[in-house]
Amino acid sequence: MKKALIVGATGFGGLGLIEILLRHPGIKIKQLVARKDAGAPISRVFPHLRGHCDMLVEPPENIDYGDIDIAFFSTPDRAGMSLIREFNRHAVPVIDFSGDFRFENEADYTVYAANKGMETSHSAADMLTQAVYGLPEINAERIRSARLVGNPGCFAVSMILGLLPAVEKGIIEGPTIICDGKTGVSGAGKNPGETNFYPQRYENVNTYREGRHQHIVEVENVLNARTENQHRILFVPQIVPLNRGILTTIYADCAPGMTTADAQSLYREYYKGRPFVYITDSSPNTTDVRGSNRCEIRAMVDERTGKLFITSVIDNLIKGQSGNAVQNANLMLGFDETAGLSALPFYP
Amino acid sequence: MKKALIVGATGFGGLGLIEILLRHPGIKIKQLVARKDAGAPISRVFPHLRGHCDMLVEPPENIDYGDIDIAFFSTPDRAGMSLIREFNRHAVPVIDFSGDFRFENEADYTVYAANKGMETSHSAADMLTQAVYGLPEINAERIRSARLVGNPGCFAVSMILGLLPAVEKGIIEGPTIICDGKTGVSGAGKNPGETNFYPQRYENVNTYREGRHQHIVEVENVLNARTENQHRILFVPQIVPLNRGILTTIYADCAPGMTTADAQSLYREYYKGRPFVYITDSSPNTTDVRGSNRCEIRAMVDERTGKLFITSVIDNLIKGQSGNAVQNANLMLGFDETAGLSALPFYP
Amino acid sequence: MKKALIVGATGFGGLGLIEILLRHPGIKIKQLVARKDAGAPISRVFPHLRGHCDMLVEPPENIDYGDIDIAFFSTPDRAGMSLIREFNRHAVPVIDFSGDFRFENEADYTVYAANKGMETSHSAADMLTQAVYGLPEINAERIRSARLVGNPGCFAVSMILGLLPAVEKGIIEGPTIICDGKTGVSGAGKNPGETNFYPQRYENVNTYREGRHQHIVEVENVLNARTENQHRILFVPQIVPLNRGILTTIYADCAPGMTTADAQSLYREYYKGRPFVYITDSSPNTTDVRGSNRCEIRAMVDERTGKLFITSVIDNLIKGQSGNAVQNANLMLGFDETAGLSALPFYP
Amino acid sequence: MKKALIVGATGFGGLGLIEILLRHPGIKIKQLVARKDAGAPISRVFPHLRGHCDMLVEPPENIDYGDIDIAFFSTPDRAGMSLIREFNRHAVPVIDFSGDFRFENEADYTVYAANKGMETSHSAADMLTQAVYGLPEINAERIRSARLVGNPGCFAVSMILGLLPAVEKGIIEGPTIICDGKTGVSGAGKNPGETNFYPQRYENVNTYREGRHQHIVEVENVLNARTENQHRILFVPQIVPLNRGILTTIYADCAPGMTTADAQSLYREYYKGRPFVYITDSSPNTTDVRGSNRCEIRAMVDERTGKLFITSVIDNLIKGQSGNAVQNANLMLGFDETAGLSALPFYP
Repeated sequence: MKKALIVGATGFGGLGLIEILLRHPGIKIKQLVARKDAGAPISRVFPHLRGHCDMLVEPPENIDYGDIDIAFFSTPDRAGMSLIREFNRHAVPVIDFSGDFRFENEADYTVYAANKGMETSHSAADMLTQAVYGLPEINAERIRSARLVGNPGCFAVSMILGLLPAVEKGIIEGPTIICDGKTGVSGAGKNPGETNFYPQRYENVNTYREGRHQHIVEVENVLNARTENQHRILFVPQIVPLNRGILTTIYADCAPGMTTADAQSLYREYYKGRPFVYITDSSPNTTDVRGSNRCEIRAMVDERTGKLFITSVIDNLIKGQSGNAVQNANLMLGFDETAGLSALPFYP
Repeated sequence: MKKALIVGATGFGGLGLIEILLRHPGIKIKQLVARKDAGAPISRVFPHLRGHCDMLVEPPENIDYGDIDIAFFSTPDRAGMSLIREFNRHAVPVIDFSGDFRFENEADYTVYAANKGMETSHSAADMLTQAVYGLPEINAERIRSARLVGNPGCFAVSMILGLLPAVEKGIIEGPTIICDGKTGVSGAGKNPGETNFYPQRYENVNTYREGRHQHIVEVENVLNARTENQHRILFVPQIVPLNRGILTTIYADCAPGMTTADAQSLYREYYKGRPFVYITDSSPNTTDVRGSNRCEIRAMVDERTGKLFITSVIDNLIKGQSGNAVQNANLMLGFDETAGLSALPFYP
Repeated sequence: MKKALIVGATGFGGLGLIEILLRHPGIKIKQLVARKDAGAPISRVFPHLRGHCDMLVEPPENIDYGDIDIAFFSTPDRAGMSLIREFNRHAVPVIDFSGDFRFENEADYTVYAANKGMETSHSAADMLTQAVYGLPEINAERIRSARLVGNPGCFAVSMILGLLPAVEKGIIEGPTIICDGKTGVSGAGKNPGETNFYPQRYENVNTYREGRHQHIVEVENVLNARTENQHRILFVPQIVPLNRGILTTIYADCAPGMTTADAQSLYREYYKGRPFVYITDSSPNTTDVRGSNRCEIRAMVDERTGKLFITSVIDNLIKGQSGNAVQNANLMLGFDETAGLSALPFYP
Repeated sequence: MKKALIVGATGFGGLGLIEILLRHPGIKIKQLVARKDAGAPISRVFPHLRGHCDMLVEPPENIDYGDIDIAFFSTPDRAGMSLIREFNRHAVPVIDFSGDFRFENEADYTVYAANKGMETSHSAADMLTQAVYGLPEINAERIRSARLVGNPGCFAVSMILGLLPAVEKGIIEGPTIICDGKTGVSGAGKNPGETNFYPQRYENVNTYREGRHQHIVEVENVLNARTENQHRILFVPQIVPLNRGILTTIYADCAPGMTTADAQSLYREYYKGRPFVYITDSSPNTTDVRGSNRCEIRAMVDERTGKLFITSVIDNLIKGQSGNAVQNANLMLGFDETAGLSALPFYP
């Protein structure tokens, strides 16, 4: 059994990892680390884990770098930078959930950080060159040998997977692609506050960071590296009274002559053999993927307007976070890409 | 006091009318009509009305055409056609909630009906010429003297009000406008079934009738009658786990040189003096309008992509249905446009 | 018009008062006071008030004691004690929402405060003798002439109104009465935190402070003052994924020979003429009262077990808080008890 | 691999079985049977199963009685009676989810059926003597050798498991035990209608069948067979806006001298070694067990009132239905009782 350490174990990202690794055939959890709640069993933080996982949460000071095969960092932006360097020094591969290592150059990080309203200078910029963008559907080979993987943003996963075939195959014309993203409340993480205050959210929909969400730069980077066209993404995220799930509707100018059937078969062809992308002919539901590592996609051509219309759904906490991370870990550690990730969607 | 009759009193449209008219200073309810539940007090159908309104629901056969100043038809498509002719014959003005009288010519009705998957021939086509599209923000004068008003579709209200200033002032370029609409579950009416089955809906988002929703023809009709451009709407409706509310995000190619400030001031100017349209500088919430007759709109220019981006929110059951109908009735009966419609949003 | 001042204007209690007073025929708001958000318009705190009420929130330092007819304190326990003394000195009548002035003697306050885990000494204990428990259904006469009213706890309202007729008429035997209370999440106030974190609450039910909730002492006080029996309440509050509403199920040993019909007619008789208590023969829904000042009650006798079973529903934010407070203010200021309180329940 | 057949495969009970058996190490699904949707793949009925299970649903006429090791009947009351006889004739063991085979004598069935408002005569009364009540926590030995098992009602599971130790150990005095049950909406099954209409349920709590729910007879039967006292259950079920989960609060007169610590240790002792019952010292959440086969219980003594107070939570669709059924099947087929049932709770 390979041994994993989880930093940031008490957030939703950490929880997702714990739950997946408890049933993983080849990876077991060696240590749970978090500053907050250090000293308590993880099952005090998450009572549904009582009897299933009662490991103690330990402070970063207690990290034992020996005998670890992989470290997951489910920490906020900028919180893990220095500690990740330490793991790197001990030759422990790291998968980081924040935006810190999603970019190959500091300029992109600066845009990302500015959009998020953070300090924009990167304190470990020298490590960016070795970081690999952790989306297995495009980078599987590089991930296999990577030592530092930046796990993608949840909205970015839904947009990139929804757009890759169309962009690579050149069926999108015009510069601008519109992404209208709907996310559940858990997307804001386990940080109780005004954003996820039940009375404010249970019956509300609103947009936020319209056209300036930090995931835009990830998406443009990945897509434009694969096409001569240089697309721009207009992305408008929205919070809906859903707990889990992302549904992104995507609109672009379609190359002439394409039909829905053409688009669908192009998508099917592109993702043939990819275990976690499923092309569907009917309207995807977020409930079709909730709790699973699947991304479900439907492509249509609206012939009245000549637009390509794509729907892409994921569970923001699984394929948008911990499930995708374990998929990366499987590649890095030599397991089957699907190991530990066969959970069915949870319905109803 | 003017006297109103409500046909289809036991659905959500009828309920909305009852609730507004109970506090209306100049209109009182004379008769409640519905086939289903006829003979029962309305407060058996809606127990929250007990003690507030216990009138009996009567079958259509019992309609007394004398001494009625206005009739509201909150009936499904095609269900009221023949009965409305009867009211017309008795010179009673009618406001109809279905799509039956939203169009001036039968061809448009045919497209509407086909999109909805209904029989497409109109059995009262001769009455279409006297029907007025009941959106007071554009048709107030015609509504004042109308005898037959087709109350608009809920999604159509959010799209038209969101687009009118931009379209009329010519700041939209290119033929296609994208409308991404999110609606609460009550939009499907008081018809329990798979669509609004709690376990299927409480944690689900999905698209439906993508690019072929029946409200598209209403929107294109209204907008294209006001501009030399002939726009096409690509509208994708979505159900979110919200009970009440519509939030529509709208994307169009913006005329060069426009800024967000320009767009906002153009919108403010356009709606100056309109009591139920509110232009906001921050992201509108559906909770900002829930339970009120307000439409809240924000216009932005995304300078990176040159797109005009508009957000429009309404309560689908009020400005999208019964509130708008009473606004029409106020005009037709000579009341102040806002009479009975001053309810604050219901929060939280 | 009488003039009201609201301290603690930016919480849910303050909001409820604002909404009711905006439509009150005889009371208008003179000043909104709160420490947090002082300096901002109230419509920045509650965006749904934009255009309806844009008054500035002012800090306590700015209070103008002159020309105020009534002051509402929607402040947390112990926060208003000293300021209320100031209003008292200026002869301004006060209605306080906290537990500070619900008790006539300090000993009861001490139990209340201990159950809530607070400091138990009362810093204005000398004022307790003039405080009146603000439940108009039992204290209307005393409230009319009161200068200091302690508005009851939300759960206490549902329990006391549900039990009064049975206790006063002596149909309950045995010492213990069981109250199983279900509340919506807004009962915890506008204090975002773990308790009302959307992902934790949207699909959860749990009990808390079992048998030691602070409202128990209110209920026992009021009931035992009306009967020779000395009842004890075993009250178990529960949070359900509801935003607003309290449903309390109440179980007690029934005097022999009673039937459901007897109990219902006893209840109807007792509350005859009380405008806000409604006795129903069918199962009450929290939606029957949501948004209204009504308490709906049903009494049944389970003949198999000899138990009296009562269901009592209120809107925790209206009859459980601001609506009841305005009902008190109406009595104190000489208005009809129902002035401003005729809002229908909000459905669906 | 043992082979299972599921009759009633397209309801929530059938779905739960499919999901559990897909990951069961020793049982595989041989045939899915249902009248409705026969001919379609199960993944058309439940789109989240696409790619995971696409077996065809077959009509009862197609049942192949050969080569089946166990048949699950997830059919409504009375719907499976004659078909179950057929399986019995073919010597195929059956686990039935309805109330048809939960009773050893017809008189109890008659009470059950009358409470549910059904025809009360049992058309397979001769088979009742061989039927075993399928609660493994009390009947494991009998279930191992049973050929016909009546899977318990969901509320009954929560009440019986919550009460067994107290009743058997004699710490409950007095005849009446009060059970206040809160259930999620999925408890009404996959039958869209008024009961589970989203707009009616998303923000509502109400009681129903107060004191006359059909599960009462199950609970009294099981408990009174284990004690000399003859207890009566006053059970009041309630629907809360939860999708999955049951939380039952239970109140009884406690034997003198008991403390909470005594009660808890008595409960722990009683359930020692039972893999799916977990005794907790803090307030159980329905989220602690959602998606898992666990029942979580807490017992307290309220010393002020001398009442024993018990909280019991389960997932109504797992331990309250399909999970418990697979637990029975494991016993009947010789597997470890926990086989296939190790899924963690699904959170958040």
